[in-house]
Amino acid sequence: MTTTRMKLATYKDGSRDGQLVVVSRDLGPAHYAAGIATRLQQALDDWNFISTQLQDLYETLNAGRARHAFAFDPRQCMAPLPRAYQWADGSAYINHVELVRKTRGPEVPESFHSDPLMYQGGSDDLLGPCDDIVCASEDFGIDFESEIAVVTGDVAMGTAPDAALESIRLLMLANDVSLRHLVPAELAKGFGFFQSKPATAFSPVAVTPDELGSAWHDGRVHLTLQSQWNGQTVGRCEAGPEMNFHFGQLISHLCKTRNARAGSIVGSGTVSNKDWSRGYSCIAEKRAIELIESGAPRTEYMKVGDTIRIEMLGTDGRSVFGAIEQRVVSHA
Amino acid sequence: MTTTRMKLATYKDGSRDGQLVVVSRDLGPAHYAAGIATRLQQALDDWNFISTQLQDLYETLNAGRARHAFAFDPRQCMAPLPRAYQWADGSAYINHVELVRKTRGPEVPESFHSDPLMYQGGSDDLLGPCDDIVCASEDFGIDFESEIAVVTGDVAMGTAPDAALESIRLLMLANDVSLRHLVPAELAKGFGFFQSKPATAFSPVAVTPDELGSAWHDGRVHLTLQSQWNGQTVGRCEAGPEMNFHFGQLISHLCKTRNARAGSIVGSGTVSNKDWSRGYSCIAEKRAIELIESGAPRTEYMKVGDTIRIEMLGTDGRSVFGAIEQRVVSHA
Repeated sequence: MTTTRMKLATYKDGSRDGQLVVVSRDLGPAHYAAGIATRLQQALDDWNFISTQLQDLYETLNAGRARHAFAFDPRQCMAPLPRAYQWADGSAYINHVELVRKTRGPEVPESFHSDPLMYQGGSDDLLGPCDDIVCASEDFGIDFESEIAVVTGDVAMGTAPDAALESIRLLMLANDVSLRHLVPAELAKGFGFFQSKPATAFSPVAVTPDELGSAWHDGRVHLTLQSQWNGQTVGRCEAGPEMNFHFGQLISHLCKTRNARAGSIVGSGTVSNKDWSRGYSCIAEKRAIELIESGAPRTEYMKVGDTIRIEMLGTDGRSVFGAIEQRVVSHA
Repeated sequence: MTTTRMKLATYKDGSRDGQLVVVSRDLGPAHYAAGIATRLQQALDDWNFISTQLQDLYETLNAGRARHAFAFDPRQCMAPLPRAYQWADGSAYINHVELVRKTRGPEVPESFHSDPLMYQGGSDDLLGPCDDIVCASEDFGIDFESEIAVVTGDVAMGTAPDAALESIRLLMLANDVSLRHLVPAELAKGFGFFQSKPATAFSPVAVTPDELGSAWHDGRVHLTLQSQWNGQTVGRCEAGPEMNFHFGQLISHLCKTRNARAGSIVGSGTVSNKDWSRGYSCIAEKRAIELIESGAPRTEYMKVGDTIRIEMLGTDGRSVFGAIEQRVVSHA
């Protein structure tokens, strides 16, 4: 099997879909992919043909031989897919589900260990890694959620988990912002999350699974996801071992009754570890732990001006995806 | 205010997005829009500029002066948007909600009269009007749902209902197929519909609100939606008066905590009337009525080979959107 290695980003250019950029392994130099494809969706629509050309450019760039390279700047990035045809977010770390449910009351049913939770998210307005979290009110209970997400090719209805793994084209980090105080009333209506899930942000670059090397196995990313809230590291969670459903299982769940088309984004849900000393990837977990330990949550959700930074280092100690770095601002 | 009148369709051409076609008012002749825009999303992305050119072609076509016109064939149609960045389906006819809930038990809370139900649907693989409903098992409880849907332009977070009405670019019919027997377990998980909502189908043409003339007012379509199941008319439901939330309210609900971008599809939910003699727009309602009247549902859900036809006639007695005509087939 041939390997496909590359890192891709989408630069802001005033258009809705931005400009596809190939980024070097060390996130140093970058190069417009304009001669190959202008938009990431275009590459995903015709992956076998276009990805080999992008990989050639990636190798040239890494070798320092790309003629029109420029210094990569995450602040110029849109989400790798600024708008996508699908954003389906699983909740594959049962520990997260158990903790968050504790604050709302309900026990986690046994079936949750065999049947993944997944919600359909809005995908028409995805945020770049340094875009503001715009929120109408702090009273909504603004929370970050540090996650991993994959981008798929075409997946046919009924595809089994192992075969579904083969459809994964790219991986990204995600900040699946939640408005916690809107959740209980919304879920009580029975139709799932809607207003409680504002726009999701994604990492500066999307990388191919092969790019992760040995850290990508069993359909999971075996690296540590770091979350820094207002400059303080609050989470160093292992993304691999405690992911109860691997990405192939999540994609297979998605495709049980329908096809998924190229460019579908599928999320892991909040990365969470049973060992509380590893910290948290969302504030709701911290509050749940406080509730368990001392009878009441003490930590408040994010306020206007708060920052969140989400990053993952490779086995070489370097940033794999670049960092999501967002600030909460008030909706005018 | 200038009026914008036109009917648009998307023809199958082997590509993911198809070819944009302008269709005459009587659904007779049609014409490729290739010189203006190739895809409907492209027109939506730049509506003010492109729609005037499309309207010119529409007028030329209606006048019988278009040089390369051909006979419109709904069987060649993809969904007007074969893949969309958003498909958010409301449930604006409370009568439907009340009936369907009766079969599951829960009462409809008072808040449902002021706070719309809405779920985020999959939008990466939308079906053309004559595409098969492919289903892995009849045991899933295959049901049609006859609906109206709008396509929006850009709508900013926090837009009020009346202003949101101005963002409506196009209207379509939809068949929001549901797998009823998967619904209770899925909703019990708390994250809303997912596997219970396979691919949605849309009418052959999308029309501008102005095209409906006086039948479009108060953010509602004041016409009769017909549903024929296996050739028998089972529903002639008035779409206007009993739509508890108008489309501007639905769009405003969608935009409470985020922006909606051009090409977002927003659905009405199953069209439903209190007067049972008008019939039904989904089988679940028929079963609910049977339950109420005789203690048990008798009508079974759709079987392989069943057909569903959904159409709406204008005040002139002519088909406004063309007909959705689908057949249930077994997933190989």
